[in-house]
Amino acid sequence: MGIEDLHINRDRLLRRLDALAEIGAIDGGGVCRLALTEEDRLGRDQVTAWMRELGMAVSVDRIGNVVGVRAGRRPGPPVMTGSHIDTVRTGGRYDGTLGVLAGLEVIEVLNERNLETEHPLAVAYFTNEEGSRFAPDMMGSLVYVGGMSVEEARATRGIDDSTVGECLDAIGYAGEADCGAPSVHAFVELHIEQGPILEQKGVTIGAVEQVQGISWTEFTVAGVSNHAGTTPMPLRHDAGYAAAAIACEVRNLAMRIGGNQVGTAGALTIAPNLVNVVANRATLTVDLRNTEEERLQRAEAELAAFVDQLAKNEGVEITSRRLARFQPVEFDAGIVDRVERAARDLGLSVRRMPSGAGHDAQMLARVCPAGMVFVPSADGISHNVREYTEPDHLEAGANVLLRVLVDLAQQPVGGG
Amino acid sequence: MGIEDLHINRDRLLRRLDALAEIGAIDGGGVCRLALTEEDRLGRDQVTAWMRELGMAVSVDRIGNVVGVRAGRRPGPPVMTGSHIDTVRTGGRYDGTLGVLAGLEVIEVLNERNLETEHPLAVAYFTNEEGSRFAPDMMGSLVYVGGMSVEEARATRGIDDSTVGECLDAIGYAGEADCGAPSVHAFVELHIEQGPILEQKGVTIGAVEQVQGISWTEFTVAGVSNHAGTTPMPLRHDAGYAAAAIACEVRNLAMRIGGNQVGTAGALTIAPNLVNVVANRATLTVDLRNTEEERLQRAEAELAAFVDQLAKNEGVEITSRRLARFQPVEFDAGIVDRVERAARDLGLSVRRMPSGAGHDAQMLARVCPAGMVFVPSADGISHNVREYTEPDHLEAGANVLLRVLVDLAQQPVGGG
Repeated sequence: MGIEDLHINRDRLLRRLDALAEIGAIDGGGVCRLALTEEDRLGRDQVTAWMRELGMAVSVDRIGNVVGVRAGRRPGPPVMTGSHIDTVRTGGRYDGTLGVLAGLEVIEVLNERNLETEHPLAVAYFTNEEGSRFAPDMMGSLVYVGGMSVEEARATRGIDDSTVGECLDAIGYAGEADCGAPSVHAFVELHIEQGPILEQKGVTIGAVEQVQGISWTEFTVAGVSNHAGTTPMPLRHDAGYAAAAIACEVRNLAMRIGGNQVGTAGALTIAPNLVNVVANRATLTVDLRNTEEERLQRAEAELAAFVDQLAKNEGVEITSRRLARFQPVEFDAGIVDRVERAARDLGLSVRRMPSGAGHDAQMLARVCPAGMVFVPSADGISHNVREYTEPDHLEAGANVLLRVLVDLAQQPVGGG
Repeated sequence: MGIEDLHINRDRLLRRLDALAEIGAIDGGGVCRLALTEEDRLGRDQVTAWMRELGMAVSVDRIGNVVGVRAGRRPGPPVMTGSHIDTVRTGGRYDGTLGVLAGLEVIEVLNERNLETEHPLAVAYFTNEEGSRFAPDMMGSLVYVGGMSVEEARATRGIDDSTVGECLDAIGYAGEADCGAPSVHAFVELHIEQGPILEQKGVTIGAVEQVQGISWTEFTVAGVSNHAGTTPMPLRHDAGYAAAAIACEVRNLAMRIGGNQVGTAGALTIAPNLVNVVANRATLTVDLRNTEEERLQRAEAELAAFVDQLAKNEGVEITSRRLARFQPVEFDAGIVDRVERAARDLGLSVRRMPSGAGHDAQMLARVCPAGMVFVPSADGISHNVREYTEPDHLEAGANVLLRVLVDLAQQPVGGG
């Protein structure tokens, strides 16, 4: 039987997506499974149970990454797919979970057909990809490839002041496997685009060539709280105003640099946060991204200069803390070719494109040939309960993943 | 014995200020007694006990205003002094409490000397002057003068979603006296300046001629939450950016209008408040003040126009809710004269000035001749744990209050 006879079971994939979306379900059809919460634990238990039902050998590493392996004709590093099952606070049903559950669907198709691959196949879900509770994002896959020590990751303190280590222990997912085991032959991740490009172009499959660099910074402003009625404007040291000015500059900066530069001040709190009191303290986060490292550095430098000048002008103290910094990543040309070819062979429209979001695949790219498959996001919306991808697109992406994984598991990779 | 022989007891005044500052004390020497909380109750119990110890007839009205009356030679409307004992969340020791406790000190001096006045004297503390928990501020005195119904005030919902009525009932200060009883012959309030003017000019006493008009508005922005990496800048509907832009415009507007226009965005929250998610919701409060009604209206109109245009540009929905609106108030010229004369007679430097903050006296000015006495605030700081007024200045202000009250309680008032 040839690879052209293999197709995923659409209904089964949709059923697993529905079942997982029940865990941590929130109003409006979305999901809240922040990393290492009780909801995350329930999601992990479900996916791990499915892995075991499919006969996979499951291991949990010390940072909570979970890998299920289906043996190949010979031992050695598996061809791996996977993604994450944690979500942002008001997340959707497909971000991350599609890649993990499509991976399980690929395994089930091969099991049904009783097909053996040359290399083992693995499906993984990585800890804390979103970074909504603990920074940096993509933490589990970063540790997996040796970019951060387990100790440093465990010591990371989250928005609720708990540490990754405490929470891993609490949910029972601090495993015993070494991080980075098994080593990986090649890695391919299926993911929703989370942007509007594929939909706008009327294309079904994105062959992802590169991932934007990401720069996350937290700014803390210390000013002087004072009476909102009696303090003349020129005598103020208003931490709230300074934070708002930085948030506006983030927008202005992104528009000024142009191209695919984006900038977001997503979290902003001020204290004492009362109508008639000038704020004495503010914190805000800034998320800057660009596919070009040079432009990303320019954005960072311009923002830093603005902040320095603002602090002088306002007589406030502004400190910054780097929450995450990843350079742009180029995916393996051979895998990008394979994704494009698989889509064409399936009669699907396909387009090479960059990723605006960070993904676990960019971490795996440090240790093996890696690539990604994108499917469209309706209205470009994600990190939102209204996140949606049509069943036809979910199915198409999973079929491309199936082909690329079987292709890689049979043949040598790299180069292109 | 002439009025020139009467002086307040400085140590006794300082002891009462210290004792009241223990209730709700917070780090740094400040006080947190938000209106109608348990701390407010404890403060009320203490001040009410002192009133009773001084032999005053105490009544509590339906909105929780507490009035202690010392009888005069003849019945009728008392000459009243007073202020408030609630604080902002990170408040100081003198804002409000000085006026109330200096009033008690005046009563104690008269008791010691066994002096009777022509008119009765009253000391009041009014509910929720700060407005930090429930808007509008100066609520108790507003209800006292008939500017708001008891029912509307009780139904007001606070920042913690509780109502004024529930909280009044819970702390046992929903009294039975009618609001507005007793009617008032004249009202004089001693208060810290809460601004830098007296200190900068080296003057001890402010004879307050007018109070700034106050305009408080809450804006709510509804945008679309989305992925911070994949959503091109021109396609965003970022509620967080819109809120920050309004906060910046409040500053720009105040500088543009100039004069004594001030503007503050003191409270600002965004949701979901995550580093990598474009915010879909934001709320912020705007506090605008001016001594001239016409300029205050101009500030309101310019802000409204900015907000309308911003909503169009960003494709977000912005709704506004008025939290408080008070026109500028002119105090009684006769009382301003008396304050100035009393200060001079005591050998104290004095200056006529406006008030940048709102005060209960401006509400009482609707129903009787009213005025205020200011003493300096170190560094102009208030609504801050570092709020401070020198003991010499506290004593000086209380002595001026003593003279003006005795003066008014002996003689007819008004006109000037």
